[in-house]
Amino acid sequence: MATLPASSPFRTADQRKHDREAKRQALLLAAARMFNARGFHATSLDDVAASLGVTKPTIYHYLGNKEQVLLECMAIGLRQLQQAAADARERPGTAIERLRGFLVSYAEVNMAEFGQCVIRTSDELLSREGLEQLKALKRPIDEAMRQFIREGIAEGSIAAHDPRLLAFTLAGTLNWPGRWYDAQGPLSPKALAEQLVAILETGFAAR
Amino acid sequence: MATLPASSPFRTADQRKHDREAKRQALLLAAARMFNARGFHATSLDDVAASLGVTKPTIYHYLGNKEQVLLECMAIGLRQLQQAAADARERPGTAIERLRGFLVSYAEVNMAEFGQCVIRTSDELLSREGLEQLKALKRPIDEAMRQFIREGIAEGSIAAHDPRLLAFTLAGTLNWPGRWYDAQGPLSPKALAEQLVAILETGFAAR
Repeated sequence: MATLPASSPFRTADQRKHDREAKRQALLLAAARMFNARGFHATSLDDVAASLGVTKPTIYHYLGNKEQVLLECMAIGLRQLQQAAADARERPGTAIERLRGFLVSYAEVNMAEFGQCVIRTSDELLSREGLEQLKALKRPIDEAMRQFIREGIAEGSIAAHDPRLLAFTLAGTLNWPGRWYDAQGPLSPKALAEQLVAILETGFAAR
Repeated sequence: MATLPASSPFRTADQRKHDREAKRQALLLAAARMFNARGFHATSLDDVAASLGVTKPTIYHYLGNKEQVLLECMAIGLRQLQQAAADARERPGTAIERLRGFLVSYAEVNMAEFGQCVIRTSDELLSREGLEQLKALKRPIDEAMRQFIREGIAEGSIAAHDPRLLAFTLAGTLNWPGRWYDAQGPLSPKALAEQLVAILETGFAAR
């Protein structure tokens, strides 16, 4: 089989695929940061492109129009949350330990760029098709949260609250830092996530 | 002193003042509902005016431009939260009871029109002056929350979490329903608020 020498100026198909993916990721990260800082309406793809020294047609080529860029940023954040649920499900130990691990990762994702995009984008900014796509990505995350809760109630480690309402409460609490978390602050996302989960676990009343 | 007969077609100064205030309130409520449903950018004052059978100059006359309308809607929500804190401070009983009362009212305000406006408006939509005005209105609410917490820790009824972080957690949890609360759902704002606060009080771990 003919292989190119290491010094060849021609890139292999694998290298081209890898480069293409790296460019896509760089564009998405730049877009997510700008959506988070300025909001969807005030962000122009021209500015996103300029922040990487390219032009708007480059973004269209790799990602599509502004809503498609936003949807892909949100989809990445939601896939990270799905992955956090899958990782927690594999952990040995009790259901409350799995829930705790999931919640900490969940909060961390929400404080990172793509998770913040999910939190900061109001439903009314999206087309109906976009909203449906996102709902389909959100559903397994909600379901995973409720499943950890049901298992914990069954094993006796989690208080017998209504699982749906408890899941809403936990998700809501750990979504909110996506709105206000400041990377310049004294706490890392992980440290903040752990403290929030500890408060949610034992409650504000003295035990 | 000359008084107008009850049947006079001329309105008294008091009646005119009352009418003016009623019109202002009706315009603000219509605007808040539209901001919440469509978002700030997609809301036009023409549509707000049309929903009450008037024209945009009427809104300018009573309230000012679109940002001024939004700021006044948010200011009403924040004054309702300040009032909730003041009412809770007057309650007899223990600090944890006052905190509980405040939290339930806080969540209820966030699910109502003007409170939702506060929750749904991202900082980046506002001018710097507008943001400063709102921060000044938010500060006493945060301070009241932390004060209830410090008193509760001192009396031994509230767990010794960091008061600032606990306040963030409680506020965040009870802000979030302002994003997703659906008045068509099975729970009233009060019932939902009480259940959320109960979960926050005792935590998700079984006691």
